[in-house]
Amino acid sequence: MIKRIKLLIEYDGTDYVGWQKQNNGKSIQEEIEICLSELFRQEVPIFVAGRTDAGVHAFGQVAHFDINKQFDIKRLNLALNNFLKKRKNKITVLKCSKVNDSFHARFSAKKKIYLYKILNRSTNSHLLEKRVWFIPSILNVAAMRESSLTLVGNHDFSAFRSTKCQAQKTKRSIDSIKISKVKDLVEIRISGKSFLHNQVRIIVGTLVRVGSGLWNTRKIKEIIKSKDRINSGPTAPAEGLYLEKIFY
Amino acid sequence: MIKRIKLLIEYDGTDYVGWQKQNNGKSIQEEIEICLSELFRQEVPIFVAGRTDAGVHAFGQVAHFDINKQFDIKRLNLALNNFLKKRKNKITVLKCSKVNDSFHARFSAKKKIYLYKILNRSTNSHLLEKRVWFIPSILNVAAMRESSLTLVGNHDFSAFRSTKCQAQKTKRSIDSIKISKVKDLVEIRISGKSFLHNQVRIIVGTLVRVGSGLWNTRKIKEIIKSKDRINSGPTAPAEGLYLEKIFY
Repeated sequence: MIKRIKLLIEYDGTDYVGWQKQNNGKSIQEEIEICLSELFRQEVPIFVAGRTDAGVHAFGQVAHFDINKQFDIKRLNLALNNFLKKRKNKITVLKCSKVNDSFHARFSAKKKIYLYKILNRSTNSHLLEKRVWFIPSILNVAAMRESSLTLVGNHDFSAFRSTKCQAQKTKRSIDSIKISKVKDLVEIRISGKSFLHNQVRIIVGTLVRVGSGLWNTRKIKEIIKSKDRINSGPTAPAEGLYLEKIFY
Repeated sequence: MIKRIKLLIEYDGTDYVGWQKQNNGKSIQEEIEICLSELFRQEVPIFVAGRTDAGVHAFGQVAHFDINKQFDIKRLNLALNNFLKKRKNKITVLKCSKVNDSFHARFSAKKKIYLYKILNRSTNSHLLEKRVWFIPSILNVAAMRESSLTLVGNHDFSAFRSTKCQAQKTKRSIDSIKISKVKDLVEIRISGKSFLHNQVRIIVGTLVRVGSGLWNTRKIKEIIKSKDRINSGPTAPAEGLYLEKIFY
């Protein structure tokens, strides 16, 4: 009988070309598929909830696969992590669980939370290398919070997607944007059902312009209306971004 | 006129033999001294508040040096970080400040806080590699808290120091031990004026035995009384330890 298995996955995305298999380097998808195929001695394609770009991290990525073999689910989890470690991967499978065959990592997802971390102090930190975006000039977090409200809700986010984004529809709903500051660390959490390519990073890059005093809420409204990528802020670096949690 | 300069220093201790100059590798002290001597074109010996061992990190190490030259203190800070970076160090000087010549990084210190981080969950994390002690079995944090109270105050800590420790006096005062748990991260903060060699790490290793259910508060009292290192717990790994803050 075919079983569907859900994987909860954490990774340090620094050394990968991203989630998706590519010709130019190590991908998270391929590494997990190689380990699964070694374990089960057959090809095991996996399906992911949200593809992440090169350098982007995950605390709670989700994927699933189907398999027609007998095994103990806890031993699978241990074996998978051992195989991943043997290949020197920076990937941890936090949990394996059997799910109903109506479950789909991508299509069943109700909400995703992306977390973006900014280190906002005058000097960079080696303890947080490749874990944050370092911004030395002081950000006005209150102004960023105010402007972020403009982006919440259902909008055409054409101005906030990569020029390479291939999505047919450009309307998306953002449930919430929460910005906290604890000591020198600014954390931006953006939640929604789905996002356009680079949408989170362009939103962060745009809000940082507000935090730096260059732009204000009216400007953000104009950018949304313009539907043109040329008007929004820079794409924030991949190293500060984490796929934090997916709700089903 | 001779000026005394105080340095507030952060570092990732992973690749160093520790603070102190040694023949067997890169030390934090030597790297900072090399950079200072390049900047000032003379030897600049520095004095530290608390020497840290190989692999131990710092958020707030303090050192001082004397110099008889004219310079802008903010430019010194920038230049020092540039030189440190050029030599591929994982050291950041957070702040340089001019201090009174009665100030001494070590002897003027009133209190130090060491932070120890434990990742307590079933699987290891690559995002926290070399930043935490990974312990997969669940720790009883309440029991650890209760036992930690026994260690607070003035005691002969002979049972809690490295067999290599050369201190003449073995009595020390611990001001407080605070243990918090947020999600999977257990943080232990130990504060006091001064510590014996490996004292913090042996205390953590001992408290983890309590948290694992192997030992209890009565056992901790017996260990203190025994004054013998053989009775206390293992020395917790360096990678979870941070010199967090020093008060003057």
